[in-house]
Amino acid sequence: MSLERFLNQSVSPWMNAEGPESDIILTSRIRLARNLKNHAFPTISSQEEAKKVLEKFQGMIPLLNLYPLKDAEFLKMEHLQPLHKQVLVEKHLISPNLAEQSSHGACLLSQDEVISIMVNEEDHIRIQCIFSGLQLEEAFNLANAVDDQLEQHLDYAFSEVRGYLTSCPTNTGTGLRASVMMHLPGLVMTQQMKQLIPSINQLGFAVRGIYGEGSEALGNIFQISNQMTLGKSEQEIILDLKNVVEQIVQQERSARESIVKTAGIQLEDKVWRSLGILKNSRIIETKEAAKCLSDVRLGIDIGYIENISKNILNELMILTQPGFLQQYAGGPLRPFERDVRRATLIRERLLLEKNS
Amino acid sequence: MSLERFLNQSVSPWMNAEGPESDIILTSRIRLARNLKNHAFPTISSQEEAKKVLEKFQGMIPLLNLYPLKDAEFLKMEHLQPLHKQVLVEKHLISPNLAEQSSHGACLLSQDEVISIMVNEEDHIRIQCIFSGLQLEEAFNLANAVDDQLEQHLDYAFSEVRGYLTSCPTNTGTGLRASVMMHLPGLVMTQQMKQLIPSINQLGFAVRGIYGEGSEALGNIFQISNQMTLGKSEQEIILDLKNVVEQIVQQERSARESIVKTAGIQLEDKVWRSLGILKNSRIIETKEAAKCLSDVRLGIDIGYIENISKNILNELMILTQPGFLQQYAGGPLRPFERDVRRATLIRERLLLEKNS
Repeated sequence: MSLERFLNQSVSPWMNAEGPESDIILTSRIRLARNLKNHAFPTISSQEEAKKVLEKFQGMIPLLNLYPLKDAEFLKMEHLQPLHKQVLVEKHLISPNLAEQSSHGACLLSQDEVISIMVNEEDHIRIQCIFSGLQLEEAFNLANAVDDQLEQHLDYAFSEVRGYLTSCPTNTGTGLRASVMMHLPGLVMTQQMKQLIPSINQLGFAVRGIYGEGSEALGNIFQISNQMTLGKSEQEIILDLKNVVEQIVQQERSARESIVKTAGIQLEDKVWRSLGILKNSRIIETKEAAKCLSDVRLGIDIGYIENISKNILNELMILTQPGFLQQYAGGPLRPFERDVRRATLIRERLLLEKNS
Repeated sequence: MSLERFLNQSVSPWMNAEGPESDIILTSRIRLARNLKNHAFPTISSQEEAKKVLEKFQGMIPLLNLYPLKDAEFLKMEHLQPLHKQVLVEKHLISPNLAEQSSHGACLLSQDEVISIMVNEEDHIRIQCIFSGLQLEEAFNLANAVDDQLEQHLDYAFSEVRGYLTSCPTNTGTGLRASVMMHLPGLVMTQQMKQLIPSINQLGFAVRGIYGEGSEALGNIFQISNQMTLGKSEQEIILDLKNVVEQIVQQERSARESIVKTAGIQLEDKVWRSLGILKNSRIIETKEAAKCLSDVRLGIDIGYIENISKNILNELMILTQPGFLQQYAGGPLRPFERDVRRATLIRERLLLEKNS
């Protein structure tokens, strides 16, 4: 498959670098956890029960008439190749849990991959919307519309006192998880990030790496999300997160300015060397690729590097993951082969840039 | 000054990569040490004596009619700026000793910089000829012709028993030092060089770095030269050195072949990354520049890199030395400024290459 065709098939619209504050914020994501009344929740349900939930959901799909869900694709986990599932995980469209451990797990995916509804994950239903840049309200509004649609056809487990009921009590209430993926090289380079994380935590927000809980902050990318789902309205949760994120954006911008002022040439050197490595290496591991992509993206944001699209980071952080590389190669690859393939894919992707 | 003009003025013809075995041998150099009868040798002579020798030499210059010395330039050390002397040292045209410590030191330099005759170095006269590639006989023949010319006008200190007399007994006899500058990345990478050096020494040859005694083998460049000047004819010395050098050339070729076979992709990765660094860095130290230049030259020799001239290594190893950088900048530079200027010069030089 040609790289261009592969990219056309692989790159979701929310991977572009066009939303508000997109110099620092890659994506905004909203997730709503819902469960069906009168059905045991997935964490304790039988295979049979799970099957019933799946059938109920599937039966309702033809009734959905929300435009963004037009021609949405329904994917049953048991029918998918492991590699295909891995790619969906790497694109953040399904969770590793749904891919590997669910019984009768499935996913309804909108054509543009902005909406993904997981069935039989930890909860019966998890609605997710991803937008590029800082667009939490927009993502929430869409998730809300999807939720309203589903509610017309499904009976949710809901308590007037506790709100939406969920398998894990940490999601009960709004069932809302709002998260923002941020590129914070300035705060990492100036050593501020380490101190910042505990203060963000104290405000009730979690800080994670690009692939969720326990994952490393590859490429200086951090996910900030609310930890509380109860005792606040959806709007409050989103507004609070937005406020924290906007403060971090300001701090990141100051950090970048101060590095440019105090160590401009060193930063330029770092950034250009990383571009040199991405354009030339024949073997590259995930970690080094992420580091270099982060440097190059920073170089583009600061204006050192021209003629290379900001999307480079957003796209390649995902497209150079093991599942994607193997999909592009058309079959399984050993780790070393992946490092070679990763280097090739990055070089070819950079060649697609004009005048690069 | 534009880089092209600077290069035109700076690059000597023997810096090109065109002589025999030029994939491995950069240059062949012959040096003849001679002293004048009836004058104290420089190491013990008075200022006055040194001045007389200089005047005697200078008086004879108009009488020289050897074509390669036509329009040769006579440079008195006391009249040269420190930077100019440093550049001549970096080009191997004069010794650091002549530049810094000689009394009434001078140098007669042919237009093409192939012939350089030092006056009042450790010996009264040192004739040097440099050729590109493996051309020891050619260099010796020219040095010999120069020597014959000088002998027509000067009385050499010569003993029928000991041959030419010199300040240091290690040069007595033929006064000949023949040396070959070799690029040996294959033997270094395969760890063979460390074992090879003692065996070369045992055969009576010295192994040094690019800037002579005590200098590091920057850029995997080694200088092999005869240690004995006595008890063998000039032809024997040259033939013995040539034999050793040709053996090393064979071993280097085998080492390269074996690396390509066993670790082709790793080598390709190394070579291309180095090119990426040279094309992109904004700050680079001598040592890293030399390492990268060596890698790139190897990549060109093996055929991984096309469209870049082999001269890159030969030229840039010399042009990125501190003196040259400061000459190009038009004045003194602090070490950090040199690292920045070095990176710029290398990038600009690479941009002069077609399609690079």
